[in-house]
Amino acid sequence: MADKMKKHVDQLTKPVGSLGQLEEIMVRLAAITGEMFPELHQKAVVIFCGDHGVAEEGVSAYPQEATALMIQSFDRGKAAINLLAKRAGAELCVVDVGSKLEEVPESVVSARVRKGTRNFCVEKAMTEEEVMQAIQTGRKTVCKLREKGVRLLAVGELGIGNTTAGAAVASALTGMEVKRMTGRGSGLSDSAYAHKCRVIEKALLRHRPDPDRPLEVLAQVGGLEIAGMAGAYIGAAENRMPVITDGFISTVAALAAARWKPEIKSYLFASHASVEPGHSVILKQLGLKPLLHADMRLGEGSGAALAMPIFETAVTLAREMATFADLGLAGPSA
Amino acid sequence: MADKMKKHVDQLTKPVGSLGQLEEIMVRLAAITGEMFPELHQKAVVIFCGDHGVAEEGVSAYPQEATALMIQSFDRGKAAINLLAKRAGAELCVVDVGSKLEEVPESVVSARVRKGTRNFCVEKAMTEEEVMQAIQTGRKTVCKLREKGVRLLAVGELGIGNTTAGAAVASALTGMEVKRMTGRGSGLSDSAYAHKCRVIEKALLRHRPDPDRPLEVLAQVGGLEIAGMAGAYIGAAENRMPVITDGFISTVAALAAARWKPEIKSYLFASHASVEPGHSVILKQLGLKPLLHADMRLGEGSGAALAMPIFETAVTLAREMATFADLGLAGPSA
Repeated sequence: MADKMKKHVDQLTKPVGSLGQLEEIMVRLAAITGEMFPELHQKAVVIFCGDHGVAEEGVSAYPQEATALMIQSFDRGKAAINLLAKRAGAELCVVDVGSKLEEVPESVVSARVRKGTRNFCVEKAMTEEEVMQAIQTGRKTVCKLREKGVRLLAVGELGIGNTTAGAAVASALTGMEVKRMTGRGSGLSDSAYAHKCRVIEKALLRHRPDPDRPLEVLAQVGGLEIAGMAGAYIGAAENRMPVITDGFISTVAALAAARWKPEIKSYLFASHASVEPGHSVILKQLGLKPLLHADMRLGEGSGAALAMPIFETAVTLAREMATFADLGLAGPSA
Repeated sequence: MADKMKKHVDQLTKPVGSLGQLEEIMVRLAAITGEMFPELHQKAVVIFCGDHGVAEEGVSAYPQEATALMIQSFDRGKAAINLLAKRAGAELCVVDVGSKLEEVPESVVSARVRKGTRNFCVEKAMTEEEVMQAIQTGRKTVCKLREKGVRLLAVGELGIGNTTAGAAVASALTGMEVKRMTGRGSGLSDSAYAHKCRVIEKALLRHRPDPDRPLEVLAQVGGLEIAGMAGAYIGAAENRMPVITDGFISTVAALAAARWKPEIKSYLFASHASVEPGHSVILKQLGLKPLLHADMRLGEGSGAALAMPIFETAVTLAREMATFADLGLAGPSA
């Protein structure tokens, strides 16, 4: 199907290759779905939410309660991702896989594995059973969306402290130094940033994670929402659905999933280049090129939702552009 | 208005600055329009078309007749830009400011200054009167669109041979070497590329353009559609309209216009980073950062149209996101 689509794309009335990444998207979407012009109209942004024991170490500019407040804000419909999903024509699916929120609103899928992870400076963040449970939640969420007719996914997250967990997982999986993988999250001072790096270094020294055992890495220094996202990518691949990563943390989750099941890489698309310094490294390891460079660092699936319409546009171009034959001209390979 | 908007943006429920370029867009749109939440729903993509005498020198992978064929293709509604404009919810306005097409279709604005420029290897491409006439066409086109209610513009071009003219103008205005400004256009071999560079170098030696006289530079080595686009940017600034540049050639036109009237820079937004090597240099000179990195090199306003919805999204976020006060919380500067 990819070959057939590549031939079709080269017959569209434009210089060969001149639509750049859009052409690659056309071909990859055809390969993934098995359809020349997949109907992607029904879309969903899935956000996994979780709290982090490591927040006790003072690694975030925000108090841990902000996770709960933001879940409530999603419920009220006025957070950035509510509006971004709406503009993209996507439904928003918020999954609480491990927050500390007392009463989960009805609009949120309540699938809590536990109330936040353990502090990974002191002990493992999760048991491997908890990791698997969060992964299964992610998988099942995607399967249900697919059954409802959803054909294009964006994956995001919410969790105070999760750039710390994300950087720890990223360092563990890539073997790169902690500073290269650690950013200022939602806004840290110089000294708070240095502290965050030390916290991660300490945790990695304690757990000595093995990069070839991604599930163990997630249990040691990951997060419930990171495991949930990993499960969502796996579910997307199982259902032959194209899935768009968001920023650093959602891409780290994709890397963890891909270390476990390399076949999922064929289903991934990058949306944007985050300000978080480790993002470009992780994207490169996954062989992904981000479409948007907008200096975003919000999470919530915001960059992925912003990029979503571009994928539908690519299909529209593939389906509706005139071919050289339509104009009675010889094409480039004719 | 920019200060007021900046304060509002910092009160939205997200870490300060976390929406990156979207926040800058919100503030700049408010400054340009004088409205906190400008209504950008009515949008237009304007494409200026022209032929180039320098095409005689064999600088393009396509025959000069392709300009006419593509104008006819725009008229039929199945070129890339027809579909991209439609997806963006924008009307498409095609202006023939200097093609060699015999019969201009009714859907195209016929405002031809002359049938293609002269070969600038041999003589000046245009007289300064012709340049001014093309600029006026661009200005008036935008004024008319504004009267019709259009509030957001994307500017693009069509013209076989115009990456050669664009690179010549870019080298002349920046003083940078021709190779840095010259790309493979719609697809040249190594030897054809070397020839293209020599043609431009020869023309610059002949005309010895003065970078401080942008209208003279356009007359010497520019194009009718380049002058038309320069006029469109000037018209946008006069009408306080935000205007989105496309790829290399449309951005070169913006640089020429800005050298003449520096105040237009405040109205410009970049859409994408083209594959053409000079594009990043020109964007930097204009102080612009492209949102999309999609390796596109089609022209026709394609990248600008693809980015258009992001601007409406930015306004939606500014207008509809909850503020910290809405949630009963203290904001960052409260």
